[in-house]
Amino acid sequence: MQDEAIRQKIVAAARERFAHYGYGKTTMAELAGDCNMSPGNLYRYFPGKLDIAEAIVRGLFERTLETLRAIALGPELTASEKLKAVLEKLLEITYEDCKHATQLYEMAQAVSRERPEFAQHYLDAHAALLGGILAEGKARGELWVADPGKAARCLQLATAKFQNPPLWTRCSLADLKEQLAEVTDAILAGLRPPTRPQPSTPTESTHP
Amino acid sequence: MQDEAIRQKIVAAARERFAHYGYGKTTMAELAGDCNMSPGNLYRYFPGKLDIAEAIVRGLFERTLETLRAIALGPELTASEKLKAVLEKLLEITYEDCKHATQLYEMAQAVSRERPEFAQHYLDAHAALLGGILAEGKARGELWVADPGKAARCLQLATAKFQNPPLWTRCSLADLKEQLAEVTDAILAGLRPPTRPQPSTPTESTHP
Repeated sequence: MQDEAIRQKIVAAARERFAHYGYGKTTMAELAGDCNMSPGNLYRYFPGKLDIAEAIVRGLFERTLETLRAIALGPELTASEKLKAVLEKLLEITYEDCKHATQLYEMAQAVSRERPEFAQHYLDAHAALLGGILAEGKARGELWVADPGKAARCLQLATAKFQNPPLWTRCSLADLKEQLAEVTDAILAGLRPPTRPQPSTPTESTHP
Repeated sequence: MQDEAIRQKIVAAARERFAHYGYGKTTMAELAGDCNMSPGNLYRYFPGKLDIAEAIVRGLFERTLETLRAIALGPELTASEKLKAVLEKLLEITYEDCKHATQLYEMAQAVSRERPEFAQHYLDAHAALLGGILAEGKARGELWVADPGKAARCLQLATAKFQNPPLWTRCSLADLKEQLAEVTDAILAGLRPPTRPQPSTPTESTHP
């Protein structure tokens, strides 16, 4: 418990330093200094700098997932509205995290590069969340989607720009939100039942 | 004419050096040395390193546009097939250009960053090409697209991953092509007329 509190303190101090000076340029000795501990003591808590970075990114990603899950579980929105809200919130969080410190994005990239299975875990978690909403829309007859998991992956691919700040050249958050809505609407347009449903796939709307 | 030949020679030599050593690390003196000319003489042809980089990128982009236009003008494909072929060819060219030398991508990024109007010109040219195919599909009744220009921009946004090699972590060209096809199909699905067309927008298929 005490150990966990110290780990949290190290992670918070490292996040500050990485955000200001960059992940690559920071040494374990500097991080130890920030926490008033010897490098040897720091290594007792984290085997290396990458492990501290992973802990920071994990914290950010877990917080994001929790926020997105709250939207996905909300009962008031349609599946289409939930998908749009989740993707927009994800953009907002990425924008907030990277607005003042693109260093944090670079650190996340370093973790993803060195530990691809870590990055894949969160990519899969996001896909599962989107897939759940798509399956809900399918069950309600709101969306025609043969394979919710595949459609979720497709939505992730089509919105990749909005999770990667280096691609945001000269775009404000408002610009990005508008672009994201265009892409999401275009994908959703392909998942909506036609005005007159096909006879082979009955939905509630076949009984007016 | 002689001047243009010398410029071409400089551009070819610089492309080699940038591809091997990177744009950032190369000096005008080194480029002059590669061309057996004095730095002073090199500056007669190009005011700076960025101008040489722009000439290289312009050459790559113009060649790409020409290839894509040939596909767009081909009479045998449907609009959907043309869109898919154009986007796949663009991916293939980007993959080929960056496979051996991500340095070239970095150089293109440097030019785009320093001269955004240059990058925008080619983004607009690609959008115009896609928009033309979409308009053709609309005229034929093959695609239902209210605003071909807007739909073209949307296709560009949704396929941004496939023009940005840093986002290709661990993906083979085959993987990328499959992902691109998924995204393109998803967007096109939203542009296809429903099986039974809406009465307000008649197409040829209303007369079986």
